[in-house]
Amino acid sequence: MVKPEILKGTRDFLPEEMTKRQYVADLLRKTFEQFGYDPIETPAIEYSKTILGKYGEEGNKLTYRFEDNGGRDICLRYDQTVPTARLVATYNQELPMPFKRYQIGRVWRADKPAKGRFREFYQFDIDIIGTDSLLADAEVAAVMNRVYLNLGFTKPGQFRIRFNSRRLINSILESLKIESDQFNSIIRIIDKIDKIGPEAVQKEISQIISPESAQSLVKIISLTGSNQQKLDALAALPASIDTSEISEFLQLCAGFNIAESNLVFDPSIARGLDYYTGIIYEVEIPEAPIGSVCAGGRYDNLCEMFTKQKFSGVGVAFGFDRTIVAMEELNLLPENKTNAQVLVTVFDEDSIASSQSIFLALQESGIHAELYPQSAKLAKQFKYADKKGVPYVITCGPDEQAQQQVTLKHLETGDQSTASLQEIISKIQ
Amino acid sequence: MVKPEILKGTRDFLPEEMTKRQYVADLLRKTFEQFGYDPIETPAIEYSKTILGKYGEEGNKLTYRFEDNGGRDICLRYDQTVPTARLVATYNQELPMPFKRYQIGRVWRADKPAKGRFREFYQFDIDIIGTDSLLADAEVAAVMNRVYLNLGFTKPGQFRIRFNSRRLINSILESLKIESDQFNSIIRIIDKIDKIGPEAVQKEISQIISPESAQSLVKIISLTGSNQQKLDALAALPASIDTSEISEFLQLCAGFNIAESNLVFDPSIARGLDYYTGIIYEVEIPEAPIGSVCAGGRYDNLCEMFTKQKFSGVGVAFGFDRTIVAMEELNLLPENKTNAQVLVTVFDEDSIASSQSIFLALQESGIHAELYPQSAKLAKQFKYADKKGVPYVITCGPDEQAQQQVTLKHLETGDQSTASLQEIISKIQ
Repeated sequence: MVKPEILKGTRDFLPEEMTKRQYVADLLRKTFEQFGYDPIETPAIEYSKTILGKYGEEGNKLTYRFEDNGGRDICLRYDQTVPTARLVATYNQELPMPFKRYQIGRVWRADKPAKGRFREFYQFDIDIIGTDSLLADAEVAAVMNRVYLNLGFTKPGQFRIRFNSRRLINSILESLKIESDQFNSIIRIIDKIDKIGPEAVQKEISQIISPESAQSLVKIISLTGSNQQKLDALAALPASIDTSEISEFLQLCAGFNIAESNLVFDPSIARGLDYYTGIIYEVEIPEAPIGSVCAGGRYDNLCEMFTKQKFSGVGVAFGFDRTIVAMEELNLLPENKTNAQVLVTVFDEDSIASSQSIFLALQESGIHAELYPQSAKLAKQFKYADKKGVPYVITCGPDEQAQQQVTLKHLETGDQSTASLQEIISKIQ
Repeated sequence: MVKPEILKGTRDFLPEEMTKRQYVADLLRKTFEQFGYDPIETPAIEYSKTILGKYGEEGNKLTYRFEDNGGRDICLRYDQTVPTARLVATYNQELPMPFKRYQIGRVWRADKPAKGRFREFYQFDIDIIGTDSLLADAEVAAVMNRVYLNLGFTKPGQFRIRFNSRRLINSILESLKIESDQFNSIIRIIDKIDKIGPEAVQKEISQIISPESAQSLVKIISLTGSNQQKLDALAALPASIDTSEISEFLQLCAGFNIAESNLVFDPSIARGLDYYTGIIYEVEIPEAPIGSVCAGGRYDNLCEMFTKQKFSGVGVAFGFDRTIVAMEELNLLPENKTNAQVLVTVFDEDSIASSQSIFLALQESGIHAELYPQSAKLAKQFKYADKKGVPYVITCGPDEQAQQQVTLKHLETGDQSTASLQEIISKIQ
C-alpha cells in the first residue's frame, strides 16, 4: 500500500477552497473578456530549446527538465510569456494585430518551497502585442483597476497601481550623466528599494557611480506627494527630465475613469527584468502587505528569440495566489463553500421518484440543486448538507407527498416552512 | 535564434478555437454544478509511487517520468482518477460523504501521437464516491443526458447512453457455467465487439470456452430491440439471469426524465478495465462515428492502493476533444470567433478621450466591448474587427462628436446607423 502524499510545493484543493478560487478565477477571466481580450492556450510541456536560456542562469536551474521516451529534451513551462512569444512568432500572420490575448494556466518551478512559494501555480496573463501606443499601456492599467474593483477592493486607495516608466528612469540617469551601459545594473538595485530601503539602495549604487550622483538619484526617486506634485518636482529640477510620457499616461488613465487614489506615480518602481522599455507597473494592497499582487510593463521585442520580426507590446501577470491571500485577509472572499443551494433529501425507497421530480423542478428553475444519492436517515442527510455548506434542505415525506407539499429548511437560521413546490421555489429564488 | 515549434501530440489553441473550447468547457462545468457536484484539483506532478502501477504495464510505459533536482522520482499525472483516489484516502474525514466531485484538468501520455491521440489533453470527470445506491448510477446517467442535451444534441437519439452491468455480464457467464476466473479475460474480448464485430469475438472466446458456450454468449449479448424487448428476451432464456438491476436502473433513469431514445440497454457493452463492478456506460453520437465521447461505470474499491477503507462509487470521464469533434461535424459549435461584441474605433489622437467614454459606457451596459488600442486609419481598424470576428464596429469622428452621436456598423450585413450612444447601446442589446 502506498502512502498518500504529494510533493512539497504542490497542492490539493478541496471543494471549499476551490469554490473560492473559482470565484476569483471566473471574475478575472470575465473582466479580461469585458475588455475584449481573447483566450489562447499553449502546452505545458515544450522543447527545452524553447524554454531554457530565457530566464537567466537562475531560471534554467528552476526549470523542470527531462528526456521523454523518444530522447527528446523537454521542459515544463516556467511561465506563459515565452510560450506566447513562440506562439506569436509562429502564427502572427493569422492573428489580428494588435493582438489582445489572455492566458490562464499552470506553470512550474523546481524551487525550494516556502510560504507563498510553490512548485506548481497558476498565472493569469494579459498582453496587448503589436502596438507602441500609450493608450494600450493605459488600457492594461484599466484592466488591473477593474479587476481589483470587481474583486471588492472598493475603498479609496485599497489597491494601488504603482507605476513608473523605464524611459523616465533612463532620462533621470542621463540627467545625472551616468553611462548607459550601467543603467541595467542600477535599475536592478533600485528594484530592491521596497525590500532593503533607500539608504541601502544608495549605498549599493555608490559602488557603481559617484556617491553624490547616487544621493541625487535616490532623492529623485524618493519624491513624495500627489502624482502632480511629483511631476512638478521633477520638472523643477535643474537637469531636464522628460516627464511627458508620465503626464500623457495619467491623462489616458483618467479617460478610463481610474481614480487617483488607485493610481500612484512612483519614480522608485524599477522592475528587475532587462526587457522592460516603457511603462512598468506593480499593484499593491496596502492593508495586506504581501508584495505586489500584479505586475508587468511594456517591452519592445517580445519574440526576439524566435523571429526577426519585432513585436512590441505591454502586459501584466496577475498573482492569483497572492490576490486570494489578500482577499482572505480583508474578508473579500464569498462565504459559500459549495455551488449547491438546496439539498433534496430522499425520505425512503418509496420516495425516490418524488424526490427526483422535486430535484428536476428546482433545476429547471435555474436553482443549483442536489439530490441526496440514496435513501438514508434524514439526520444523516441534514448532517451532509451542513458539512458541505448547502444552505437549504428540502424534505418530502409521505405526509407532504399526500398533500403535494414540500418542507424547506434554512440550516443556519433553522427557519422552516411547508408549502407547494412552486411557492418553495419562489422563496429560494 | 530558436525555431518556434511544439512537440507532436501537444497543441496551441488560438482565440477562435479557444472560444469554442471554452463554450463547451463552461457548459460541462455549469451542468456538473447544476447537479451539485463540487470542484477539486490535484497537482499535475506527483510522486511516481502514486501514479505508476495503476494502469498496467502499458500505462507505466505511457507515463512521463523524471527525477527532479532533489532526486525525487516524479510523474506527470496519467489521469485524474488515481490522484482523486489519493485525495479521498487523505482527506475522507473532512469530505462530505457521499462525495460528489468534478475535476477538470490536463493529463499527459508519453504516447505516439496520431489523429485524435494526444500527449497532452483535458479530462472532465465526475464521480459520486461512497455510496452503493443505484440512484447514484442513474444520476450520473442524468448528468450525461443533460450535458449532451445542453450541448445541442437535441434530436431524438442524437446521442445514446449505451449501458450494461458487470453484474449482468457475470450472471450471463454464470448461467453458461463459465468459471469465474475466466470472466475478466472474456470481458476484455467482449469489449472489442464494436471494433472487430461479433464473429471475431465469438472466435476469440471459443479459445477459452467451448464453441457452443461462445456461440450462446455472443447470441445473448447481441440481442436487439427496445430496452424492454431485450429484458424480456433475457427473462425468456432457460437459464436464470438476474435482470432486476437493469430494470431498476431504467426506472430510476425515467425518474430523471431521460428519454428512451437516449438510453440504450446494450448487453454487449463490457468496458475493458477490471475494476468495474456494476453499471457501465458509453455515450456515442451515431451521426459522428468517432467512438465513445464519454464513458465510465461503477467501481467497488477506488482507494485500495492507498487505504484499507473501502470507497465504492460511480463516475464517468467526458471526452472533451471527441465531444468537440462531434459538435463540429454536426455544426453545434457557436459561430462567434471572439468574446467581443463591439469594436470601438479611435478616429484620431484628438478622439481618444471620446472613444474611451463610449467604451466605458458599453462596458457598463454589460456589453463585451473592445477599444482599438491606438489611433489608426479607420480601414485598418475595420479590417482588424473583421479578422477577429467582432460583429459590430462603432465609429465616432469629429462630426458625430459635435452632434453627440455615434455610428454603428454591422460588419456582416453592412447595416449602418447613426444615433445617440444610448440608442445604439439598446440596439446592440
